[in-house]
Amino acid sequence: MERYDIAIIGTGPAGLSAAITAKIRNKKILLIGNRDLSTKVQKAHTIQNYLGLPSVSGDDMGKIFQNHLDSMNIAITEEKVNAVYAMDDYFALQSANQMYEASSVILATGVVLGKPYPGESELLGKGVSYCATCDAPLYKNKTVAIIGFSQKEEAEAEFMAEVARKVYYIPMYKEEISVSDEIEVIRELPAEICGTDKVETLQTREHVYEVDGVFILRESVSPSQLVPGLQTEDNHVMVSQQMATSIPGCFACGDLVGKPYQYIKSAGEGNIAALSAASYLDQKRRAQKSA
Amino acid sequence: MERYDIAIIGTGPAGLSAAITAKIRNKKILLIGNRDLSTKVQKAHTIQNYLGLPSVSGDDMGKIFQNHLDSMNIAITEEKVNAVYAMDDYFALQSANQMYEASSVILATGVVLGKPYPGESELLGKGVSYCATCDAPLYKNKTVAIIGFSQKEEAEAEFMAEVARKVYYIPMYKEEISVSDEIEVIRELPAEICGTDKVETLQTREHVYEVDGVFILRESVSPSQLVPGLQTEDNHVMVSQQMATSIPGCFACGDLVGKPYQYIKSAGEGNIAALSAASYLDQKRRAQKSA
Repeated sequence: MERYDIAIIGTGPAGLSAAITAKIRNKKILLIGNRDLSTKVQKAHTIQNYLGLPSVSGDDMGKIFQNHLDSMNIAITEEKVNAVYAMDDYFALQSANQMYEASSVILATGVVLGKPYPGESELLGKGVSYCATCDAPLYKNKTVAIIGFSQKEEAEAEFMAEVARKVYYIPMYKEEISVSDEIEVIRELPAEICGTDKVETLQTREHVYEVDGVFILRESVSPSQLVPGLQTEDNHVMVSQQMATSIPGCFACGDLVGKPYQYIKSAGEGNIAALSAASYLDQKRRAQKSA
Repeated sequence: MERYDIAIIGTGPAGLSAAITAKIRNKKILLIGNRDLSTKVQKAHTIQNYLGLPSVSGDDMGKIFQNHLDSMNIAITEEKVNAVYAMDDYFALQSANQMYEASSVILATGVVLGKPYPGESELLGKGVSYCATCDAPLYKNKTVAIIGFSQKEEAEAEFMAEVARKVYYIPMYKEEISVSDEIEVIRELPAEICGTDKVETLQTREHVYEVDGVFILRESVSPSQLVPGLQTEDNHVMVSQQMATSIPGCFACGDLVGKPYQYIKSAGEGNIAALSAASYLDQKRRAQKSA
């Protein structure tokens, strides 16, 4: 079977950045994921803080990234990887259709969101968002609901309250809430997000709230299912400053390794992961030569 | 005195990325450094692995970054910060011309290449200085040597020549020198700074010069000299995954915190540092409210 130097799983900014750096390093790469790049990127509103691309839409950013891949002849293998197994000397990647082999692996699968609310997928990018920090400027003087899955999201609500006219905060956790008085805390379970072309209401089991936007801030699912034996913490893969995971030859980057969930942060980490993987391969080759 | 929320020192990719993210977070920022952005970026040949900017020259990258700053009305304060002091509740930044105050600081000054000269650390403050403008009055009618690492430092030499009796200028760069006739240009490599209680001589490989002061004007000051008390390792500032240094409220990013020295890695870290600084400020404000 063909063996790649580096298999990169995920086609968000982290995976793409890893791919271009690995390619420059003359590594034989397998870039595996959605060909339409990251769904989250595509559907994002305006991104303002990716240095070098001022005020870019998610759609345009996707095209710009694709152009960068094209210019370097990097192709995406459209597959969903279900499991990665660390073998003696390489990694086996299992997809629905086939197996792949690679000497090293870079995980860049992003944060896996839970089961979506009715209306969530349909209205994503049309008022539904996963990042309050990113999209807050769009909701100046508007009304938004924030569904927070952990206490940490209270800071996002506070930030939003500085911009929006009205913020409803819907905690999906039991712990005590500590937010400013101007934020209205609603202890109800979200049932559906409604609207035709854009978000109009958030319905809970008890009430209907008229809103311009709904922010769903989930903590997400464990990546330890993807790579058995991988050390994780709070659903994030634990990595060193060089993006090495607990498994030698396996690196991780992007949202998967922790907050903040930001495109430029992910791209930066992808670069580090690729250079670390390249240097891992070089060391291994040297060790084999001298053995 | 005006107090900024976040002072960002350095205008390479790390500092600029921090600035745009902090600005989006509605923080009052001071971005301080060279207005011509990072010299290293400007002088780079083609950069291929900055995701989103395929095959870009250093010069073009500088223009693209400047355009991003302009689009967000972010101005650069052209100053060189010589020292940052952690006070009880804020940071005091000392430049040649004035003091600045900020509630938090992001260091993005780049990596300082090269070791200090023999005698430099020992005689710092005893004739060795990093700021000609600051200390010139002390050298009225005296003899000083200025070691300049870039053409910009020629202006410092000129200024010093108005005060001192004799100025030796030792350029550490290849470009043409353009200074007044009364300044003696020495094309020799400094070897050691000597003196017991204070500077007495500067020795090059060829000669010994009797001087009262030696000014070493590098592109950036080493981090432990810039921020007294900062924990460093091998000339890199030690940081957490969230880019926090050993001093609360002080964050660091970019080449300064370690390898790889890559633009996209620096930009990613600048983003993290800005969000960490914002959340530090929020926590501080809440603590003050509840106190």
